[in-house]
Amino acid sequence: MSSQPMSELQVQWRTVIEATLDRWLDDPEGPAPRLQEAMRYAVLGGGKRIRPILAMASAMTIGHPPDTALVPGCAVELIHAYSLIHDDLPAMDDDALRRGKPTVHVAYDEATAILAGDALQTLAFEVIGSEGDYSAPTRVRMLQILSRASGQAGMVGGQAIDLGSVGQSLSLEDLQRMHRCKTGALIEASISLGALAAESADEAQIAALRSYGRALGLAFQVQDDLLDIEGATDTIGKPQGSDAARNKPTYPACLGIDGTRDHLRSLQEQAVSALAVFGRSADPLRQIADFVVTRTH
Amino acid sequence: MSSQPMSELQVQWRTVIEATLDRWLDDPEGPAPRLQEAMRYAVLGGGKRIRPILAMASAMTIGHPPDTALVPGCAVELIHAYSLIHDDLPAMDDDALRRGKPTVHVAYDEATAILAGDALQTLAFEVIGSEGDYSAPTRVRMLQILSRASGQAGMVGGQAIDLGSVGQSLSLEDLQRMHRCKTGALIEASISLGALAAESADEAQIAALRSYGRALGLAFQVQDDLLDIEGATDTIGKPQGSDAARNKPTYPACLGIDGTRDHLRSLQEQAVSALAVFGRSADPLRQIADFVVTRTH
Repeated sequence: MSSQPMSELQVQWRTVIEATLDRWLDDPEGPAPRLQEAMRYAVLGGGKRIRPILAMASAMTIGHPPDTALVPGCAVELIHAYSLIHDDLPAMDDDALRRGKPTVHVAYDEATAILAGDALQTLAFEVIGSEGDYSAPTRVRMLQILSRASGQAGMVGGQAIDLGSVGQSLSLEDLQRMHRCKTGALIEASISLGALAAESADEAQIAALRSYGRALGLAFQVQDDLLDIEGATDTIGKPQGSDAARNKPTYPACLGIDGTRDHLRSLQEQAVSALAVFGRSADPLRQIADFVVTRTH
Repeated sequence: MSSQPMSELQVQWRTVIEATLDRWLDDPEGPAPRLQEAMRYAVLGGGKRIRPILAMASAMTIGHPPDTALVPGCAVELIHAYSLIHDDLPAMDDDALRRGKPTVHVAYDEATAILAGDALQTLAFEVIGSEGDYSAPTRVRMLQILSRASGQAGMVGGQAIDLGSVGQSLSLEDLQRMHRCKTGALIEASISLGALAAESADEAQIAALRSYGRALGLAFQVQDDLLDIEGATDTIGKPQGSDAARNKPTYPACLGIDGTRDHLRSLQEQAVSALAVFGRSADPLRQIADFVVTRTH
């Protein structure tokens, strides 16, 4: 897989993100070594780490060092990793490949994949309660944001809408609603958590960051749909055209390819213009918005 | 199913527990109504509610009103409910009946069952962060206890050991270790959370309650194994002998039936003697220990 960098931040911070996740997933006293191995297999050694990087870029935007947001950012990454394991299961999308490697239920077995996803979700909440140096009220607000974004009103709700929409043609509004839950909620949460971790953002800054996050989350999904049509398996790590083959509603099905490209550009502009209230400190977030429309995987 | 009461507390508090769970599971704005329906189906209208009742009895033991512990107790119940949904899946225990009703993947479908379990786990953490009237440091400690008890070092780890032990004969020590994770961790957490919710327990009281919880958690599983052999489907709500048929290691397989009954009595005595430091305020916990050895479902 190619390794086009998302931003300078990704190049600089990837190692510390990997090391943090590695440390959290290393429990020599753990009662079930095979389960732990499957959790490590799912989380480590792959992925763009866009969620922790967004959290870190968000903290920088309001003038704090990026590692202020390392813990909540990596917690979101654990939620994302668990959702991919469960999404890939035979009863869900039934995918055999993820990031060019066999999916967890293929590399291990289905029961282990279900449990590894379950335990990764728990771990995300455990680290919010215990890792890093945050005040108790900040931890509680992180818990509120992460749980709302992850559950039935957020990511899991979006997956349920997605499942129910196979074979249906959705309006652009319904498609946006699905993606706002399924992918957008965690992207927005990453950005909110990054601002919260810094403990000094004001209301206007938070509102601006949330607008950015909302547009970026949708842009990310729109580009995913384009890559699903245009990309090749070796670049995106899953079979090309797999969403269309499964008869899932997509942006190109809804808007056509040219319309989808226009929509992507408009979302990118929305994301970038939301950052106008910030100076150069928001450059990492601007870079990420550029990456989202130009990425090839 | 018969409705032998576990304790006076169960009779008095069941309605408020049900109403609390019902309220948490009622989100008219939720994006995925069928998912929400499956979550309600799994949680409402059945179950002994032993975990919330234990939390409430624990709060009473140290002199607080039982509803002090309603929120964390019901949060544990949500974790328990999610674990049952996932345990029953075809890739796990493949059970078609639970509490005399079709299991969630039978009543709905497998994908919905996976997602309903996922969203119930999230909801458990969401309510710890937002429901009831607790200080932020108390919420953070609740989050720590609930997450450690639920994840790879607790309940999910125990389920993984359980899966890996099918067809093997375990030593009593290994069997205890598995159950201490799989069932015991949440039972102990219920009791710790009940004490914590009251915000005034001292170290000696917490240690006594944890000893009680450890013995009770094991006793509960030992009685489950006996009921699996002795009970009838219409009483326990699942086919009799299903664990033995699946070749899972059980206490009777390890100790014989008489040895298992002796072991159960000894655990009950340990549980009750741990309560010696408390006066009459621990009577609800004593009643629950009696219930565990005499229950028929």
